[in-house]
Amino acid sequence: MKRMQKEVDAYISQFKEGYFPPFEMLARLQEEVGEVAREVQQLYGMKKKKETEEETTLQKELGDVLFVLISFANAEGISLDEAFDEVMEKFRTRDRDRWTKKEELE
Amino acid sequence: MKRMQKEVDAYISQFKEGYFPPFEMLARLQEEVGEVAREVQQLYGMKKKKETEEETTLQKELGDVLFVLISFANAEGISLDEAFDEVMEKFRTRDRDRWTKKEELE
Amino acid sequence: MKRMQKEVDAYISQFKEGYFPPFEMLARLQEEVGEVAREVQQLYGMKKKKETEEETTLQKELGDVLFVLISFANAEGISLDEAFDEVMEKFRTRDRDRWTKKEELE
Amino acid sequence: MKRMQKEVDAYISQFKEGYFPPFEMLARLQEEVGEVAREVQQLYGMKKKKETEEETTLQKELGDVLFVLISFANAEGISLDEAFDEVMEKFRTRDRDRWTKKEELE
Repeated sequence: MKRMQKEVDAYISQFKEGYFPPFEMLARLQEEVGEVAREVQQLYGMKKKKETEEETTLQKELGDVLFVLISFANAEGISLDEAFDEVMEKFRTRDRDRWTKKEELE
Repeated sequence: MKRMQKEVDAYISQFKEGYFPPFEMLARLQEEVGEVAREVQQLYGMKKKKETEEETTLQKELGDVLFVLISFANAEGISLDEAFDEVMEKFRTRDRDRWTKKEELE
Repeated sequence: MKRMQKEVDAYISQFKEGYFPPFEMLARLQEEVGEVAREVQQLYGMKKKKETEEETTLQKELGDVLFVLISFANAEGISLDEAFDEVMEKFRTRDRDRWTKKEELE
Repeated sequence: MKRMQKEVDAYISQFKEGYFPPFEMLARLQEEVGEVAREVQQLYGMKKKKETEEETTLQKELGDVLFVLISFANAEGISLDEAFDEVMEKFRTRDRDRWTKKEELE
């Protein structure tokens, strides 16, 4: 993850515009999630693809979300490795009884 | 990233419920992005925190988005390393003239 | 709709803060859609409600989205009656063959 | 609002497919909010429009959100008039001290 954050930083640092301010990051995140939503509907739902819509894949759309997420974290000085460890720790403790452990079913 | 995808898979595989179906993954993604939106408003916007709202941080909220993104990719058999490489390649080629290179300003 | 837009305007005009700027409106919209997402998961999905989560309903959450939508339109000087007529006109013309008319099945 | 809900119902009832199931409604809502996000960035942010992107307006995008919101409410048997009254009532009571009344400043 750290390698990815550095790669995105190297990419964005080339440009004069730099990172977007936080509300614009958030808007980009919504835009990309909207494209994931469109793709999921086309893969698994009733909605038909319009012929004008460009060919895309769910992998590409999730990649776009990941890119915005990394950019957002970089702009805010957040380590996604730490954020990940924090969320996994939360699941292991606070939410430990939220789901059904497989052995409980035997 | 591969390590994170495996860690999430090991965590989720413990439970009978397993991965959510795609539209539910998408709903969770929206829910987490909504919490990022709330946090960004409280950090940088005009919206006041309600006293009943729990203490949280942007790092935690971005971590939650990352967790859902990894779960989503796992459930769909997508490698986020590949997705990341694909998006970076797109920026280096298709979008190469979208932003202003720093040296162009000199 | 016009009556609703006026009622929201009368409400918001009481306050010093007034309407939010556009990126904050968008953030609020994302936040409210995130709450709809949570509610839909709890009504129709696998996700269990945490005991700490407040009692709510889909009607309330859709009402919150409507309120933000009206505020957004007001702040931007947009008539939602006109916006609605425009979208219905689009469906009647551009998208007229997108779905299957019932009589075609007979 | 009731008139709009009826107009959408008359439109959708023509088609065999009918209303989408709730998670697909939500996905459409996310998609449309994503398009509002793109439009807001292009109007007020740093993001440049790609030349391939079709001409659109914020009115059109808010109209699309309104259409999905009305469809969603119809499919769930929810009156948006009631939902609106409920949210306005909440603001007048629970959140009454959240913002600064203008006269308090005098």
